[in-house]
Amino acid sequence: MASRQADLSITRCASIWCEVARQAPRVQCLTNTVAQPITANLLLAAGARVSMATHPAEIAAMARGADAVLINLGTLDAAREAAVPLILAAMALAQQPLILDPVFVELSPVRLALARSIVARGPVIVRGNPSEVAALRAAVTPAQAMGSVWAVTGAVDAITDGVRTAHVANGHPWMTAVTGLGCAAGALVAACAAVEPDRLAAATTALLALGIAGERAAAFADGPGSFAVRLIDMLARLDAATFLDRARLS
Amino acid sequence: MASRQADLSITRCASIWCEVARQAPRVQCLTNTVAQPITANLLLAAGARVSMATHPAEIAAMARGADAVLINLGTLDAAREAAVPLILAAMALAQQPLILDPVFVELSPVRLALARSIVARGPVIVRGNPSEVAALRAAVTPAQAMGSVWAVTGAVDAITDGVRTAHVANGHPWMTAVTGLGCAAGALVAACAAVEPDRLAAATTALLALGIAGERAAAFADGPGSFAVRLIDMLARLDAATFLDRARLS
Amino acid sequence: MASRQADLSITRCASIWCEVARQAPRVQCLTNTVAQPITANLLLAAGARVSMATHPAEIAAMARGADAVLINLGTLDAAREAAVPLILAAMALAQQPLILDPVFVELSPVRLALARSIVARGPVIVRGNPSEVAALRAAVTPAQAMGSVWAVTGAVDAITDGVRTAHVANGHPWMTAVTGLGCAAGALVAACAAVEPDRLAAATTALLALGIAGERAAAFADGPGSFAVRLIDMLARLDAATFLDRARLS
Repeated sequence: MASRQADLSITRCASIWCEVARQAPRVQCLTNTVAQPITANLLLAAGARVSMATHPAEIAAMARGADAVLINLGTLDAAREAAVPLILAAMALAQQPLILDPVFVELSPVRLALARSIVARGPVIVRGNPSEVAALRAAVTPAQAMGSVWAVTGAVDAITDGVRTAHVANGHPWMTAVTGLGCAAGALVAACAAVEPDRLAAATTALLALGIAGERAAAFADGPGSFAVRLIDMLARLDAATFLDRARLS
Repeated sequence: MASRQADLSITRCASIWCEVARQAPRVQCLTNTVAQPITANLLLAAGARVSMATHPAEIAAMARGADAVLINLGTLDAAREAAVPLILAAMALAQQPLILDPVFVELSPVRLALARSIVARGPVIVRGNPSEVAALRAAVTPAQAMGSVWAVTGAVDAITDGVRTAHVANGHPWMTAVTGLGCAAGALVAACAAVEPDRLAAATTALLALGIAGERAAAFADGPGSFAVRLIDMLARLDAATFLDRARLS
Repeated sequence: MASRQADLSITRCASIWCEVARQAPRVQCLTNTVAQPITANLLLAAGARVSMATHPAEIAAMARGADAVLINLGTLDAAREAAVPLILAAMALAQQPLILDPVFVELSPVRLALARSIVARGPVIVRGNPSEVAALRAAVTPAQAMGSVWAVTGAVDAITDGVRTAHVANGHPWMTAVTGLGCAAGALVAACAAVEPDRLAAATTALLALGIAGERAAAFADGPGSFAVRLIDMLARLDAATFLDRARLS
């Protein structure tokens, strides 16, 4: 594990970040309607491509051809609920990375059951806030949890694969005042995982990029409205030099 | 009624406004997909918390634990239609405030029937434009209408509970050029009603806050796009002193 | 045809553009949830009115009373799928213009079948990117294609009715970095078609207006986030003089 551990450097993450724009992976996002616009805009700013199909009649085809797949459980509805097993079946044949955002699983038994079924299929990358991730980890067996990467975002993000743990200290308090930014973080994790097989490194790269863009955006913003706009600008302008200069990884 | 009438002062409204950020109520919004992002962002800017569940399988749980509930009839679909009676049943046990936004009821018989069933359950706070509120009031009995607070928004907003009437003169013409701002106003009414049992005072506070933020945003905007962004900023920065200085209530 | 050809001048298009704000047509948009906010905001900026109903129980009523109807196949779901034949039936009696945006038909057989059924009903105005339009034209007969106007957007937009072809050279590369702008272009085409029976002139006018606003917005933007905001501002401020000065039509 030592050599892989050493790989989790800022330099390595900056390189993964640049790969996203170079390869322009398509991320199929089954995500909530609140976060869809900012999620799509941040994926485009990163240089990725986006599809947001939800219909059971087309979701398998849209997932199978994608380079990574995000399942976000926000604004769950019957179509999204039906889409989850279809995505899992389609991806059993393909081998793209799968990212799960367990929005509000601590409040909704329906969402918790869906999230469990996705983790049980593992390995996945889970991106959530502390209460969501705690509720989900308590609902799966340790063996199921161990197969996946768990990214808990907050003032300092903590990302672990059960062996290695990374901490990302970049970010800004306004990030919790903009709806959908956490959800968009999951989509950026998917974009990075599409170009990088080391899932811990991919998740860490995405959270570093978003955090750095947030810090830079705050310098040009007067509140959470202008902050969200500038964040898109700054993510689109985030190059390797800025990434290397600003990343706070431990 | 005199003492309650006296309570509807700008000072009282400024105090209610500050309570929202202090208590951070969760507002469960069954609202349309067009207005979801700006509604969520304005609730967060006010210091409230947001959930936007629609699934019949989870809506009762999400509504029961919320501090206030908004039902907005825009982009009505089968799930939202099914969710309405489930919300009403869940709230019969709990006692949170319920806010209704009867979007386009004058164009859609399906929406009008739903809106009638909600008002009949009363008491609710209705927030709509003149043609929507006129269509709904014509569809319910005077006794049913009397139990609720009616807020008609326009160049001057008029809010009445059948006994008292307040007028809010704050605002800016660009507010009608930004999609979802009327819908977001309903959500802000819900956030204020979560912290203030006098529903007329709560509705008036929310419309004052949004109107003041709109006036301030217009000073920094070049059109409806930048206006919407600045409005979020200004609502997040709206403190008691500014509220007291700017509110135009009669 | 010569006299109609001559009509497709910049002066004629500027006049159509001003008609939109003067007549304020209502555009009923069956469109995807990702693009809904920016679509509605750009329609409002143009001076049009917006409705975005999707429910099969109300879509016929909402379409019948509209001045133009947009069907955009993004985020297709069961309700939107069911709504399409209801819209076509409702519009067989009325005679409003119908605009089709065949999002991702090249990736989804379900969407392609729906798009074919709409074109077969013709005449419609199709607005898509090159791969979408190519997939759809390959799926309909030449006779079916001939009855409609086809607008292919890109660095230079090409609009044809099979007899006349217009090219619009206005625009900016950031337009492809903002989610939903292509979809919003379709909605603006609908707004112009509501006030102008020559469908080629209507589509050309909308693409000129959006392209000019994009060029002006780029001068005030630092990236795709602020660009999207300024684009709304600039479309709202686009007057006849600017239109005449900036339009690049061939």
